[in-house]
Amino acid sequence: MSHVTSVIDGLKKLYVEKLKPLESTYRFQDFVSSLLTESEFDAKPMIMLLGQYSTGKTTFIKHLLKGNYPGAHIGPEPTTDRFVVVMGGTDSRSVPGNTIAVQADMPFSGLTKFGTAFLSKFECSQMPHPLLEHITIVDTPGVLSGEKQRTQRSYDFTGVTAWFAAKCDLILLLFDPHKLDISDEFKRVIGSLRGHDDKIRIVLNKADQVDTQQLMRVYGALMWSLGKVLNTPEVMRVYIGSFNDKPINERAVGPIGKELFEMEQEDLLSDLKDIPRKACDRRINEFVKRARAAKIHAHIIGHLRKEMPSMMGKTKAQQRLIDNLAEEFAKIQREHHLAAGDFPNVDHFREVLTGYSFDKFERLKPKMIQAVDDMLGYDIPNLLKRFRNPYD
Amino acid sequence: MSHVTSVIDGLKKLYVEKLKPLESTYRFQDFVSSLLTESEFDAKPMIMLLGQYSTGKTTFIKHLLKGNYPGAHIGPEPTTDRFVVVMGGTDSRSVPGNTIAVQADMPFSGLTKFGTAFLSKFECSQMPHPLLEHITIVDTPGVLSGEKQRTQRSYDFTGVTAWFAAKCDLILLLFDPHKLDISDEFKRVIGSLRGHDDKIRIVLNKADQVDTQQLMRVYGALMWSLGKVLNTPEVMRVYIGSFNDKPINERAVGPIGKELFEMEQEDLLSDLKDIPRKACDRRINEFVKRARAAKIHAHIIGHLRKEMPSMMGKTKAQQRLIDNLAEEFAKIQREHHLAAGDFPNVDHFREVLTGYSFDKFERLKPKMIQAVDDMLGYDIPNLLKRFRNPYD
Ligand SMILES: Nc1ncnc2c1ncn2[C@@H]1O[C@H](COP(=O)(O)OP(=O)(O)OP(=O)(O)O)[C@@H](O)[C@H]1O
Ligand SMILES: Nc1ncnc2c1ncn2[C@@H]1O[C@H](COP(=O)(O)OP(=O)(O)OP(=O)(O)O)[C@@H](O)[C@H]1O
Ligand SMILES: [Mg+2]
Ligand SMILES: [Mg+2]
Repeated sequence: MSHVTSVIDGLKKLYVEKLKPLESTYRFQDFVSSLLTESEFDAKPMIMLLGQYSTGKTTFIKHLLKGNYPGAHIGPEPTTDRFVVVMGGTDSRSVPGNTIAVQADMPFSGLTKFGTAFLSKFECSQMPHPLLEHITIVDTPGVLSGEKQRTQRSYDFTGVTAWFAAKCDLILLLFDPHKLDISDEFKRVIGSLRGHDDKIRIVLNKADQVDTQQLMRVYGALMWSLGKVLNTPEVMRVYIGSFNDKPINERAVGPIGKELFEMEQEDLLSDLKDIPRKACDRRINEFVKRARAAKIHAHIIGHLRKEMPSMMGKTKAQQRLIDNLAEEFAKIQREHHLAAGDFPNVDHFREVLTGYSFDKFERLKPKMIQAVDDMLGYDIPNLLKRFRNPYD
Repeated sequence: MSHVTSVIDGLKKLYVEKLKPLESTYRFQDFVSSLLTESEFDAKPMIMLLGQYSTGKTTFIKHLLKGNYPGAHIGPEPTTDRFVVVMGGTDSRSVPGNTIAVQADMPFSGLTKFGTAFLSKFECSQMPHPLLEHITIVDTPGVLSGEKQRTQRSYDFTGVTAWFAAKCDLILLLFDPHKLDISDEFKRVIGSLRGHDDKIRIVLNKADQVDTQQLMRVYGALMWSLGKVLNTPEVMRVYIGSFNDKPINERAVGPIGKELFEMEQEDLLSDLKDIPRKACDRRINEFVKRARAAKIHAHIIGHLRKEMPSMMGKTKAQQRLIDNLAEEFAKIQREHHLAAGDFPNVDHFREVLTGYSFDKFERLKPKMIQAVDDMLGYDIPNLLKRFRNPYD
């Protein structure tokens, strides 16, 4: 660990030496999350915009960049029809999804699991831009409202939003005063962000389209229903304003409205500028969470292997284990003093398990577990001592 | 019914002739709601104010009346220590709770069931006032916040709020920007308003005590938690303003804030002025609901009587009926084609039942039921045809 040049560099090395071997031995990638690639460690912090169509997601990005990204479409009807990753590059160009997914230097190979139907609705837009040297922005297709959502998506939309939510540093949910309703698809999308509540921020956009009294009604109604849908006691931060390149419509909102919106816009921008500084801490945090999950996963797989008979009755034994999976989890938890809350979802685990023969699983290798424990107990704390956060 | 002079007068006569006999025969008053007195029919529409201490309930009333009611106390610490009914009268005076509860011309005899501990915290404040000729206002002691609520109330606070909620036409829940938290006592109070959601309005008072950006945070947080506590999909109307006799603090909120608050205050005042007009409709509605409940109640009591053996094994039979009460309800419901949702709460009914010998109950008297059916089917519709709403 002596020729390490930064915290991220250190994590990358620790991953390859100590965590990845455990993950691949117990097929962590099939059950929980694909193996990390170098490019994922090097990826810039990412923010994702989500919201009903026409709430101004693409316009918001245009406003941030003070110009359009290559391939941007803005319009009153549903326009953005794909996930677009907007990132820095030496020249302006659009790269199609199928190409990005196979590029080893891009952190998007994990998206191949959503199939070509998705990849053809996925694009990378590159351009030279000072802001994009520090963050990557993900534009998304508008979430469909009540009437429109009957049109079926050809791919697992909420699977994709969940994937990006895990990789992102910040998720902006956009609303506008005329598009407040949280449709079923929107509820599913919000559900797909579970576990990443701390990344979510709400934007009540186009706030200057209504007068102050209406705005208060609209804002109140939004909070009323969001409180129920997000179901966290902590109130989410909401930014009220109008995020486009036009001046604020002072006629509707008056000078105070203008001043309020400008303060809110500044707050949001400074929050966005804060992301790179916080991103390093967040990565360490997610890395540690991942290591814990991988350990538990190894214990589960090792346990299932151990419970298999050496000769006869394998099919029966395997079926019994699958049927009693919740109890087996409880056993493992007690035996190794693990936190019950860290265990994976039983039903999902059972579903993936059905594709395997348990007697082909690896037995638990205490040395591998020990390596990860050492990493968590010594290497990472030492790494943090050596490198202070580069953005501090 | 020919010498009837108004809808309310008509209902009063119908009650005495057709509904009250059914209610008292089957002891409706012991199980559901005390018999109605003349004074309850004549009572003015009532609004109740509820909220944490110092949110400005008493000040709000002072603002409405443009002066204090006799015995009003205003101050930054918990001040109002009792329920005060503020009503019109020929001269200004305070009447203690024990006295009002026994006055036949006052609609408060039902409150005696909360005992003298309550009655000594109950008061009637009378004064000549044009507004009080049309409405009665109920001031309440502040709901206690987290730390303070350990002090026990000496009476059933939420029982009393529930009682008033049923009699009121409008319930104002007051909050102020520094007192947003919904304590456990407040949650129970809100719970006690169940079934009267349509009467609830929210007031975010003292809105000029914080600047606009803070106000938005505060208001958002309030809606976020209220949405969860009230648990209705419809957003409650919130009035944002400062309801006292001082001019709005323009320094904090600016001219737009001032304008907004003034509009909100006007909206609320005109909502309050609308109450007498709507109160008549509401009374008819509640009267009809009551008649339906009394019919169901009569069916239940009559059924329990019918199921009792004439000679031996009475105690056993009664116990069996009590144990299977839910099934007995289901039988009655099917037999008489009644709505399941209109049946009383089984557990509460069972509790009251334990004090009775079922063989002392009256048998079902079809003629009495018929009288109420006639009242619902003919008399009330005719009454409505004859008298248009006097406030229309
Ligand atoms: N702050 C704003 N104030 C007023 N109008 C706006 C604002 N932001 C965007 N608009 C307008 O709203 C419409 C939709 O904008 P845009 O295409 O950016 O939305 P979107 O959320 O990206 O929609 P989609 O989900 O369909 O891609 C456009 O006509 C745009 O000009
Ligand atoms: N709109 C307002 N703006 C600023 N201060 C206010 C406002 N309304 C009331 N106050 C102040 O708040 C304090 C509490 O007011 P008040 O006694 O009316 O509250 P309350 O809700 O009746 O309290 P309690 O529950 O203890 O009876 C007083 O000091 C009063 O002057
Ligand atoms: Mg778009
Ligand atoms: Mg008071």
